[in-house]
Amino acid sequence: MYEKINVDLIRNSGIRIVDLRSDTISRPTPEMREAMYRAEVGDDVYVEDATVNALEKRCAELLGKEEAMFVVSGTMANLIAVMVHCNQRGSELISGDKGHTFKFEQGGTAHIAGVHTSIIKNNDDGTFSLDELRVKIRKNPDMHEPVTSLIIVENTHNLCGGKVVPLEWLEKVSNVAAEHNIPVHMDGARMMNAAVYLKLPPSRLVRDVDTVCFCLSKGLGCPIGAMLAGSSSFIEKARRVRKALGGGWRQAGVLAAPGLVALDSMVDRLQVDHIHALKIAKAIYATKSNNFKVDLATVQTNIVLMFIDRTKIEIRELQRRLQTVLTTDGVKCSVRCSSLSINCVRFVLYWEISDEDVDMACDKIQLVIREYDDRLKVGY
Amino acid sequence: MYEKINVDLIRNSGIRIVDLRSDTISRPTPEMREAMYRAEVGDDVYVEDATVNALEKRCAELLGKEEAMFVVSGTMANLIAVMVHCNQRGSELISGDKGHTFKFEQGGTAHIAGVHTSIIKNNDDGTFSLDELRVKIRKNPDMHEPVTSLIIVENTHNLCGGKVVPLEWLEKVSNVAAEHNIPVHMDGARMMNAAVYLKLPPSRLVRDVDTVCFCLSKGLGCPIGAMLAGSSSFIEKARRVRKALGGGWRQAGVLAAPGLVALDSMVDRLQVDHIHALKIAKAIYATKSNNFKVDLATVQTNIVLMFIDRTKIEIRELQRRLQTVLTTDGVKCSVRCSSLSINCVRFVLYWEISDEDVDMACDKIQLVIREYDDRLKVGY
Amino acid sequence: MYEKINVDLIRNSGIRIVDLRSDTISRPTPEMREAMYRAEVGDDVYVEDATVNALEKRCAELLGKEEAMFVVSGTMANLIAVMVHCNQRGSELISGDKGHTFKFEQGGTAHIAGVHTSIIKNNDDGTFSLDELRVKIRKNPDMHEPVTSLIIVENTHNLCGGKVVPLEWLEKVSNVAAEHNIPVHMDGARMMNAAVYLKLPPSRLVRDVDTVCFCLSKGLGCPIGAMLAGSSSFIEKARRVRKALGGGWRQAGVLAAPGLVALDSMVDRLQVDHIHALKIAKAIYATKSNNFKVDLATVQTNIVLMFIDRTKIEIRELQRRLQTVLTTDGVKCSVRCSSLSINCVRFVLYWEISDEDVDMACDKIQLVIREYDDRLKVGY
Amino acid sequence: MYEKINVDLIRNSGIRIVDLRSDTISRPTPEMREAMYRAEVGDDVYVEDATVNALEKRCAELLGKEEAMFVVSGTMANLIAVMVHCNQRGSELISGDKGHTFKFEQGGTAHIAGVHTSIIKNNDDGTFSLDELRVKIRKNPDMHEPVTSLIIVENTHNLCGGKVVPLEWLEKVSNVAAEHNIPVHMDGARMMNAAVYLKLPPSRLVRDVDTVCFCLSKGLGCPIGAMLAGSSSFIEKARRVRKALGGGWRQAGVLAAPGLVALDSMVDRLQVDHIHALKIAKAIYATKSNNFKVDLATVQTNIVLMFIDRTKIEIRELQRRLQTVLTTDGVKCSVRCSSLSINCVRFVLYWEISDEDVDMACDKIQLVIREYDDRLKVGY
Repeated sequence: MYEKINVDLIRNSGIRIVDLRSDTISRPTPEMREAMYRAEVGDDVYVEDATVNALEKRCAELLGKEEAMFVVSGTMANLIAVMVHCNQRGSELISGDKGHTFKFEQGGTAHIAGVHTSIIKNNDDGTFSLDELRVKIRKNPDMHEPVTSLIIVENTHNLCGGKVVPLEWLEKVSNVAAEHNIPVHMDGARMMNAAVYLKLPPSRLVRDVDTVCFCLSKGLGCPIGAMLAGSSSFIEKARRVRKALGGGWRQAGVLAAPGLVALDSMVDRLQVDHIHALKIAKAIYATKSNNFKVDLATVQTNIVLMFIDRTKIEIRELQRRLQTVLTTDGVKCSVRCSSLSINCVRFVLYWEISDEDVDMACDKIQLVIREYDDRLKVGY
Repeated sequence: MYEKINVDLIRNSGIRIVDLRSDTISRPTPEMREAMYRAEVGDDVYVEDATVNALEKRCAELLGKEEAMFVVSGTMANLIAVMVHCNQRGSELISGDKGHTFKFEQGGTAHIAGVHTSIIKNNDDGTFSLDELRVKIRKNPDMHEPVTSLIIVENTHNLCGGKVVPLEWLEKVSNVAAEHNIPVHMDGARMMNAAVYLKLPPSRLVRDVDTVCFCLSKGLGCPIGAMLAGSSSFIEKARRVRKALGGGWRQAGVLAAPGLVALDSMVDRLQVDHIHALKIAKAIYATKSNNFKVDLATVQTNIVLMFIDRTKIEIRELQRRLQTVLTTDGVKCSVRCSSLSINCVRFVLYWEISDEDVDMACDKIQLVIREYDDRLKVGY
Repeated sequence: MYEKINVDLIRNSGIRIVDLRSDTISRPTPEMREAMYRAEVGDDVYVEDATVNALEKRCAELLGKEEAMFVVSGTMANLIAVMVHCNQRGSELISGDKGHTFKFEQGGTAHIAGVHTSIIKNNDDGTFSLDELRVKIRKNPDMHEPVTSLIIVENTHNLCGGKVVPLEWLEKVSNVAAEHNIPVHMDGARMMNAAVYLKLPPSRLVRDVDTVCFCLSKGLGCPIGAMLAGSSSFIEKARRVRKALGGGWRQAGVLAAPGLVALDSMVDRLQVDHIHALKIAKAIYATKSNNFKVDLATVQTNIVLMFIDRTKIEIRELQRRLQTVLTTDGVKCSVRCSSLSINCVRFVLYWEISDEDVDMACDKIQLVIREYDDRLKVGY
Repeated sequence: MYEKINVDLIRNSGIRIVDLRSDTISRPTPEMREAMYRAEVGDDVYVEDATVNALEKRCAELLGKEEAMFVVSGTMANLIAVMVHCNQRGSELISGDKGHTFKFEQGGTAHIAGVHTSIIKNNDDGTFSLDELRVKIRKNPDMHEPVTSLIIVENTHNLCGGKVVPLEWLEKVSNVAAEHNIPVHMDGARMMNAAVYLKLPPSRLVRDVDTVCFCLSKGLGCPIGAMLAGSSSFIEKARRVRKALGGGWRQAGVLAAPGLVALDSMVDRLQVDHIHALKIAKAIYATKSNNFKVDLATVQTNIVLMFIDRTKIEIRELQRRLQTVLTTDGVKCSVRCSSLSINCVRFVLYWEISDEDVDMACDKIQLVIREYDDRLKVGY
């Protein structure tokens, strides 16, 4: 998914590198490093790390859930949620077909958790059909069928371009789930981006789900970690599962401390990333290219998806071109991006990407688009 | 899925019961009982049951595969195939979204085998898009992704109304699979119906798949059992997995003997079931009802799907009506059927259903359709 | 574990073959074949097979449990019991270290059921230390520990030579288990032999366990099948698990019918097998060999273990010698046996082994023992 | 396993707390915090974290293995090793019965990895019988048996009191394993203590094993993390499994930096902990108590096991007494320890425990021992 290049070579040549592959690559802020340095720590396996305890308490409040637990990664948070909710043999979960858990967590829900997945086609806005949901829920499953034990929603929706999922839809999902007594888990890896976009407290966004996780290590800039929240009884079971997976950690306060910093100082600033994303999207749109498309309406948070016609453009070549700075290029900027499929590249914004970075990236992207457009015009 | 009624009460009242819920309910023929009675047997766990060995050898030849193994059920055959093919951690299989393995085997591929499933929407004819297949196959999966380890096809396709899947499509699936070095397994529970329909030897139908299973206990009338076939090395591993699942059986020759009878005498006669199915389909079609639909083109083998408008007709009530014989009914026949969803009932034919049964069932179905049509007309 | 030889060659030479490898190789009686032939059958997946239902009802009564279920094999019965009892993540079962489930079911408790096993050394009589049991039970397990969810006992104990486990011990196990609210499952594959030995009704033997299975296909002579019994709620869950494993079968009445015959006519006669076993044991004992040992006190049912000094005798060679009839042999008898380890062979009796078979087998075994003794004497 | 008390109350009373529950509670040194603060970081999921890469390279060299991987915990390292080595269905591993993986990792080898465990009784020195090992290895396993796929050894051996396992024994285990082509994994959580005790390079200690893990977060004082090392192909697969478990982490350089510090400055000083441990052991020994025993010969590294007679002394009460400071106590010191079983408490040393801490702890332990001895004398 990610193209490797020799970054050092580029760095040494005075070229500006704008690395938009993912917000996971964001590095800790100086303030976070300071907090790590000073963190009061204890053994978190024995729930004795004061900083972890403080972070967990704060996140529980922020999310309006009884308790929260600090875990290594969003993938682990989702896996634990699946393992706790799907605690009976022959369980099935329902997910959108573009869900991260379904597509990009190595099938751990089946391999590690032993849970079957039933999927519903995701709409472009990250939602899926409630009618389909009603159909997919196994009612009084006979012995041919697994038992529907969990519904997973994602917000913001990564593969839908960082779209903020409508709160009304979440409420409806929750209502359908409640009719059948099925819990709802939100993979809210970038949930804080949604909260900032909606100008609503995080607790409002997750009001209608039973459990939720969000990542500290993405747009919030922390080095490592995600939070998983839910009822006290859920978190109690989750602690056991985390330990079984080898996710019990010791003086985790050194990582929780940046987490507290992030909640203090990195949430509001996510809107800067959103502005940057929109700027890039508009730059692409402004080219009026027939070969490179962006849907401005969906660019709500820190992700921009640029769609290409894969019959005309080879995506690896495009990525390489964006990264490369030719002597003939007017713009001395190397832009890195990831590919979500063979017809879509993704740009993701985060705190280390400055206004100036964005301006240069826009210029470079436009340069490359025009170059392709010219070439493809000639080609016909 | 199956409605229970007091069959004994009906039986004693001189009413004809035509039970079309499934061909799994077919009972062994007298010839099969005779064969069971006389079967030479040994301990099959030690591969010493001569009758089982004969059946396995014969099926391997019939299917053009190196070896075959006799197992308890189609579900076990499919599960074993998944467990043998998907022998690396983090495996994924690809299936149609109406596949039996995906929908009706209790999620055992995940729960028991630990294998993730990626699905492609089934077309009405049981096929799925080859383009989608190419997209879903994980090419050089990075560590976010499971490894595509198996493609499952189904023939005839149960939820598509017993449709025979086109051989050209199977060949194409096989070609795509081969490009990526992925094995193809056919859930051929009713594969013999397809062979009879196509008037081709079974080996031709499974030429393009690596492994295949078919059921002896469905249209072929045997009491118990399915055959799983593939390469010698596949079957060797399959024997181990069967034992782990508790599927090792002892004097299985008593069940293999009817299997041999079935291959001798029950395959060709499947065409009678196909004629019967078409007769029922035409009877439904002949009503020209707006409320009850059948797609004549898809009725190729021993299954008839009748679609209803679920906003007007409650399926449980319909099933009960078909089963019940009112004193005012002209036709003294109780028809049993299964429901595949809330807008579709299924009629399945098998050797115990006679011409006369079919005639009476047609009359009864038409009677009920007209009754509904009249009522619904009045209702508007 | 089992030595293969060319049985046909031997059969055609007028030599008597006495196959004592296992009682699993026992073939159905003529009466059983008759019962199969006449069995009333239905689809057991829909609990509509009258003969299966009758067998299940009868076994539940016989065992004094609420319900029983007919399954393919003892291995499947045990696996299902483990899967139903150990229904929480991170479960552990406790078993004797010579338990069949632990040693000879391919590790399915871990592989298929995901359950950890803690073992206790088995005493020679099939019991294990109650003090050890108390130690191994995880009390208030913290998150480093699995949760003790099941205790498995075995009766008669196969690897302890078919020993009948004392009822007082079972009661004590049950009491310890009850203190900690842990269910007890009995692998009673040869439980009927124990009941006959103790001259007690089967229900008394399993009074102190929550669930139990016994095999119809071993000493009772049926071709296939085992019974699993327990509470109604246990069996309800067991039916789901059986289906997931692919163990749902259709017209299983053809196999249940011999089961009913077995309960009528094959239980009491097990004492004949016990007499035969003792006769063989005494024949070995009578040789006063220093190289071949048998513990007469433990030969209670249909199994005889003969221990050898593995530094002097190579077990495969011994097995081959017992099978082979030399022209110089006075006794024209080929005896087949299995090896449980490199210093122990096992002889198992069943209905097809006649008085005359036993007499000839005793002669042959003594002949071979003396031959070894002579050779080993010379050797020193 | 761990007793909780109100530490804050004690802290505020001027009492010295000596917390010997585990070396996992050791906090990072100031130098480690400095290193965290300055660490160069990148996204480790993309193997772009320079500090992680440096740590992995250094550990591979230190251990004489091709590659190493940085993971969250020793439990995860062991689990990954099991999942990679036991990569065929129906696998079994062999472990000592006091092995941490067997006893204290929540049965994850079965629950998560689906691997069966066969155990051998551990000797007091952490070894187990090689004859037993030869017996437990499944030779040409037939389908009743799992396949022996891994042997796990532990060094130093936690439950054997931190004993250093003899190198000759490891070589012999390796030879037996090699005969059967089975890999050996060392749970070397405290392997560096063994290396320091033996005055040998770590690579020598792990020369005879295929893979090894050791913890940075125990005696080496790091906040979080363990290293897993083996062949390149092993580590490649391990990276996939780590991701599936949710153990992929981002800017892990902030944790790798203390790891590098630990390797530079914390290894040699482990001998101080060993001296401290011996001092405590001798203090116990010096009481000549009949009620409290210690085996001086086994106290080789940083662990002291003190055995009590559980019929006379209730372990929770003992732990509480060691923690409590009575106004009548001459020694104003609260000693915390863990219990490994109901007749054994464990004291573990680490860098934060000073000479003075040890002196006071010795005095307090002796005080409590004498108090018990007096009371128990009176009691008779």
